[in-house]
Amino acid sequence: MKTPFNKPYLSGRETFYIEDAVKRGKISGNGVYTQKCQKFFEDKYGFSKCLLTTSCTAALEMAAILVEIEPGDEVIMPSYTFVSTANAFILRGAKIVFADSRSDHPNIDENSLESLITARTKAIVVVHYAGVACHMEPIMALAKQHDLFVIEDAAQAIDSYYTFADGTKKALGSIGHLAAFSFHETKNIISGEGGMLAVNDEQFAKRAEIIWEKGTNRSSFFRGEVDKYGWIDIGSSFLPSEIVAAFLWAQLENLEDIQRKRRAIWEAYHQQLASWALANGIKLPQIPNYATNNGHMFYLICKSLEQRTAVINHLKAHGILAVFHYLSLHKSLFYNERHDGRSLVNSDHFTDVLVRLPLYYELAVEEVIRVLREFKKP
Amino acid sequence: MKTPFNKPYLSGRETFYIEDAVKRGKISGNGVYTQKCQKFFEDKYGFSKCLLTTSCTAALEMAAILVEIEPGDEVIMPSYTFVSTANAFILRGAKIVFADSRSDHPNIDENSLESLITARTKAIVVVHYAGVACHMEPIMALAKQHDLFVIEDAAQAIDSYYTFADGTKKALGSIGHLAAFSFHETKNIISGEGGMLAVNDEQFAKRAEIIWEKGTNRSSFFRGEVDKYGWIDIGSSFLPSEIVAAFLWAQLENLEDIQRKRRAIWEAYHQQLASWALANGIKLPQIPNYATNNGHMFYLICKSLEQRTAVINHLKAHGILAVFHYLSLHKSLFYNERHDGRSLVNSDHFTDVLVRLPLYYELAVEEVIRVLREFKKP
Repeated sequence: MKTPFNKPYLSGRETFYIEDAVKRGKISGNGVYTQKCQKFFEDKYGFSKCLLTTSCTAALEMAAILVEIEPGDEVIMPSYTFVSTANAFILRGAKIVFADSRSDHPNIDENSLESLITARTKAIVVVHYAGVACHMEPIMALAKQHDLFVIEDAAQAIDSYYTFADGTKKALGSIGHLAAFSFHETKNIISGEGGMLAVNDEQFAKRAEIIWEKGTNRSSFFRGEVDKYGWIDIGSSFLPSEIVAAFLWAQLENLEDIQRKRRAIWEAYHQQLASWALANGIKLPQIPNYATNNGHMFYLICKSLEQRTAVINHLKAHGILAVFHYLSLHKSLFYNERHDGRSLVNSDHFTDVLVRLPLYYELAVEEVIRVLREFKKP
Repeated sequence: MKTPFNKPYLSGRETFYIEDAVKRGKISGNGVYTQKCQKFFEDKYGFSKCLLTTSCTAALEMAAILVEIEPGDEVIMPSYTFVSTANAFILRGAKIVFADSRSDHPNIDENSLESLITARTKAIVVVHYAGVACHMEPIMALAKQHDLFVIEDAAQAIDSYYTFADGTKKALGSIGHLAAFSFHETKNIISGEGGMLAVNDEQFAKRAEIIWEKGTNRSSFFRGEVDKYGWIDIGSSFLPSEIVAAFLWAQLENLEDIQRKRRAIWEAYHQQLASWALANGIKLPQIPNYATNNGHMFYLICKSLEQRTAVINHLKAHGILAVFHYLSLHKSLFYNERHDGRSLVNSDHFTDVLVRLPLYYELAVEEVIRVLREFKKP
């Protein structure tokens, strides 16, 4: 394909920092670059504690351990999401209760949540689709009322915000008790594979560090708080290599530039496709008043599966790769029989009609727009 | 410290391959370098299928999922090992039955295993300490007799072998049903953090790939075996970034050189410390007839905890960092109360008296030997 769907962006300093990490004699996890990245995120977005992880999946698994999911506990989350949102909790024995998306956005329908809460519900996982905030204020209020944890799957949501009714603006990932970010190569800020857990509720801070370090108090040991470290809890090796953190650091240095560029591409799509979309019965993404746009993703909501297929094929014929996204998890081979049978029409709708357009730093967006405008059927 | 315990080795081509991976437009998992590394290991060591992972811990977790550990299942493993050997199985609900080490080596005592097997035993995990083979032939026979899985924790055991009674020589990690390797910076071949699952029993090959890819049949999809991929099983994101795999590939290109160098350092320690050790009642590592030496680790077995402390302090006073190793897991804060109370004297002995000497590519080994020979008390 002449125009791929995604192309990883290199700031130019990545390998310099990797070589520096090697020269410092430490390329295993939790080195200088890991700590620099974590501090950057804490300072910029107001997360009380950040821990880099090998993936967003790993960060979600840490969250599932931290909220002490036990077999039979119920976790509410959207069906229109990536498998890891669910797997992380299933690995701890949770029953997943899938919620529908809003009719106007793939984000979870906040109004559908209350009826899904039972005595076994332990947590709500929200996914900020395309980096656009779920309606967090009513969700946090509902969670508080029912004593539930809220975990933000902020995989796509770096550098995006939510505004509360009183005007307070908070970064996505800083609102729930815990949040998970992704630095997968398809994200705004990348390290190939990679992720981060943001801990906002202080009660989880100390244990998060232990679980991250294979269930040991190694971090306390390095701070001189204990004189030898040992096995004190369950855990895994959630730390990424310093090679990964050094790469990520070079990206963070260029965050503003990357974000400016991605938002400009998004705006170009949005403005220049408006009349074409209207003429074809295609909807463009909307940003609610309480949300911001982080330029993560630009998608079209086609009027039918057939139209979406035609759009994808039209672009492909011109060397441009556009791709659909999630398949409703409640209908998957793995979960179909476990699902309670409720119909989730909006999730199924986005499964069929949503298509994502290329969006990356070096994209020649005008070319994609020009080709798309030639699409007139069916 | 003038002489650290470990220093990561850079072949010089690591960042070249990382840049190449970025230029190819793919730095997420399972790209060209991941596949090159996996093929290298399969071809060189006869593993039927290899999958790179984010850590050896992750590979052990994959093994625990693959053998379908369920709550209450028992897994036998040495107490003298890293926490991840146990955690990976505990996360799936296993009860760990800790075995003692041999009196002459930290490896699991093969003669102690039969008495630990119950109707709930599902697997035996062996750890090839210092890259030296456990006595695999009787262990495999016992496992076959009781229908148990054998998982090799080969974290330290790359490029090492076991010879069967009939003269057949097999690479460590190719003998059990599954095996886990580490590429942590302290290992022979490194990527900072990193690991690999080796699948030897064909029954696990297909599912291993699914679990590796978040429980999806994505790998089948990319091979064109299915027309779209979906959620079909539990799983996690066990794939490392291509950045990590590209780094590892540069190391593999230099495997022979690295191994020659490490074995030479080991031999220098072994030969030149022999009479000094004898005079001080210190034992040097021995390689059984059925095993090989991969130059991973050189350790001293002191005659007492006091002597070990004195050796460590003597070296430290000369700017050389030597470090003890595991603390018996059955006595850890986490597991002490869960342990069945059996005394594991050899494991506790190695906890107290084993000390590891620096061993890395650029080490000036003669200097460490010279300083050690000055040690004469207590």
